[in-house]
Amino acid sequence: MAVGPGTLPEFFPVAGIKLGIASAGIKKPGRKDIVVFELAPETRVSGIFTRNQFCAAPVLVSRKHMAESAPRYLLINTGNANAGTGEPGLKDAMACCESLASEAGVTASEVLPFSTGVIGEPLPVAKITGALPDALAGAREDRWAEAAAGIMTTDTRPKGASCQIELDGHRVAISGISKGAGMIRPNMATMLGFIATDARIAPDVLANLASELGEKSFNRITIDGDTSTNDACMLMASGRYSGPEITADSPLLPPLREALRQVYLELAHAIVRDGEGATKFVTIDVSGAASQQEALDVAYTVAHSPLVKTALFASDPNWGRILAAVGRAGVDGLDLNALEIYLGDVCLVRDGGRAGDYSEARGQAVMSREEITIAIDLKRGDVRETVWTCDFSHDYVTINAEYRT
Amino acid sequence: MAVGPGTLPEFFPVAGIKLGIASAGIKKPGRKDIVVFELAPETRVSGIFTRNQFCAAPVLVSRKHMAESAPRYLLINTGNANAGTGEPGLKDAMACCESLASEAGVTASEVLPFSTGVIGEPLPVAKITGALPDALAGAREDRWAEAAAGIMTTDTRPKGASCQIELDGHRVAISGISKGAGMIRPNMATMLGFIATDARIAPDVLANLASELGEKSFNRITIDGDTSTNDACMLMASGRYSGPEITADSPLLPPLREALRQVYLELAHAIVRDGEGATKFVTIDVSGAASQQEALDVAYTVAHSPLVKTALFASDPNWGRILAAVGRAGVDGLDLNALEIYLGDVCLVRDGGRAGDYSEARGQAVMSREEITIAIDLKRGDVRETVWTCDFSHDYVTINAEYRT
Repeated sequence: MAVGPGTLPEFFPVAGIKLGIASAGIKKPGRKDIVVFELAPETRVSGIFTRNQFCAAPVLVSRKHMAESAPRYLLINTGNANAGTGEPGLKDAMACCESLASEAGVTASEVLPFSTGVIGEPLPVAKITGALPDALAGAREDRWAEAAAGIMTTDTRPKGASCQIELDGHRVAISGISKGAGMIRPNMATMLGFIATDARIAPDVLANLASELGEKSFNRITIDGDTSTNDACMLMASGRYSGPEITADSPLLPPLREALRQVYLELAHAIVRDGEGATKFVTIDVSGAASQQEALDVAYTVAHSPLVKTALFASDPNWGRILAAVGRAGVDGLDLNALEIYLGDVCLVRDGGRAGDYSEARGQAVMSREEITIAIDLKRGDVRETVWTCDFSHDYVTINAEYRT
Repeated sequence: MAVGPGTLPEFFPVAGIKLGIASAGIKKPGRKDIVVFELAPETRVSGIFTRNQFCAAPVLVSRKHMAESAPRYLLINTGNANAGTGEPGLKDAMACCESLASEAGVTASEVLPFSTGVIGEPLPVAKITGALPDALAGAREDRWAEAAAGIMTTDTRPKGASCQIELDGHRVAISGISKGAGMIRPNMATMLGFIATDARIAPDVLANLASELGEKSFNRITIDGDTSTNDACMLMASGRYSGPEITADSPLLPPLREALRQVYLELAHAIVRDGEGATKFVTIDVSGAASQQEALDVAYTVAHSPLVKTALFASDPNWGRILAAVGRAGVDGLDLNALEIYLGDVCLVRDGGRAGDYSEARGQAVMSREEITIAIDLKRGDVRETVWTCDFSHDYVTINAEYRT
């Protein structure tokens, strides 16, 4: 199951960013399971990584390499997460980097490794390195759609977003792909995102964009509350467009930020729409909070409540479950008599109980939709936060009970 | 589904505590949905209530009445939680207390109301008060088994525990019943527990026992992470036994506490065993923690992880999911190389990765059992906490997607 059509967009090639795809046969013979990004010299890269305490070997190696060198290659494999693999896992990740570096004529620290798949199995290094010549030989700027398919694991469909804008007469392309369907939650998920643009962006601005846009998109989606050991979301800027470098006070920055923001949101939402077993795309919008922390506490408590999620699956406007989740979010002194809860445009809760003008028929009408917004106004302040999630269905249990078996 | 046989024990009557059961037809005609506890004068009562910010009307009224008077009656209805009902809900709860008080010749503040069922529907007061004469007329000390059945909602079976001990030659009876199967989580759940003894216990000791024993049993179980607005766990001591009052320094206190503790644990575990859709009873045992908070953070993060819970349902020793859950528990500075994770007696994780002597066959053997312990030694300190949970099955989704429809 998945929500919405989920067709891939037309991808605008990004000058200076080539993609190679190959088959290493990690889990299934013949499956495309290796994607390589080849970045033109001068490309600037920034990113965010999982905050899971036990981050995987490739995350540790990527962080180290980014501190040492300007990346020239990103190497992504599916089918094996190289996580929970201890010291041998680090050596394996390094061996893959070294092999790619030697094949491509760069140094190992110019290669960033990314892995996704089952935790705790040794990485099949020979299979991966054996596929690298093929991936490098075929690297081209027009292979985004194949790359989107090449990074899938339990995803039911590839995920991509792309746009082209003009900044003061200079054409800028932005393209991105993402993957992830389970173990999705802020900070982060079995989630990989790769976004590239040909704009030239000052390093500090690029770092801010990568962190700010990742925070408000990939770090605001949740499917099951679990966080993977492997997540990463990378922003690459090749600088090949015809315009000037974009600095913090550049008038070109706001429109570029907005275009990037849309691509980030589209890629993050695509993960929720393809959430394991998802039949609904749900926006949880908390306003009137006294702090960001309490807004997020309420939003995530509702978003993670299995009772709310199963009610969403059943299209049951069981507003008592939403109210109970808000009440247990750990926010002290909530005023039940002040707060309001809406399902779409229908008020569920007002004046301390069910809204006077509420009817099951009106609630049911909203619940039957495929896209639903739950809006909670705490009436305590002016902070607002939005998170996105999906419902909890039989298929979620089936997928996760049968994933390895 | 439910774990284990779950047959009711033989109940020892508790002198001074009578139980009346009646049918008010709140949800289904003929169903026993009213239980009344009639407490002999001098009975002392202490209890713990939900910490949900939006506690239900009966919780507010019970708390108020306990502050005003020594309780003589407990009035429990199923089929309607009288929660999210605002000011009218408070009036309805009071109306039930007044009706019972007038029928029994006591004052309304000597009656404690308890409600469980659907949130947000008006309490059918006339139906409840209409059943009270019947409940009072039939009150006897030997109706514990019927009372256990009378407080059920989505429970698949009644829950009770009972024992008799001798304290310095004086026979003491302890009997209890509980209910709850979903929306179960510490602080507390759609969970009701009523435990009575004929021991005479000093008020401060009784209050400590109610709080301490409730904390380590009912507040350590979790099924789906949701917390109800209505939960309560009451401890009643009629004082009718032949021994002396038990004070804080009485040598009779430790054996009494231990007997009560066993009854509390049995009642709390019975709720987990009957967890909605449960096929496994799971003990999460976190040791070597530097603080109680971090021990509980790790334990609940593992216990609530849908990925861990679906793996338990599938009997899949997917230890990577356990490791990832520990890693995202929000405990800073965890040392992956030091910690150890066991599944039953099989070591899963040691020295930063999968234990050298681990094999899928050994993990599988433990996972196939109906009762499973996941033990996590953080190797940071000497604090230990245990929580109990169940797995996450297709039936959980079915039950919660269809509860109201």
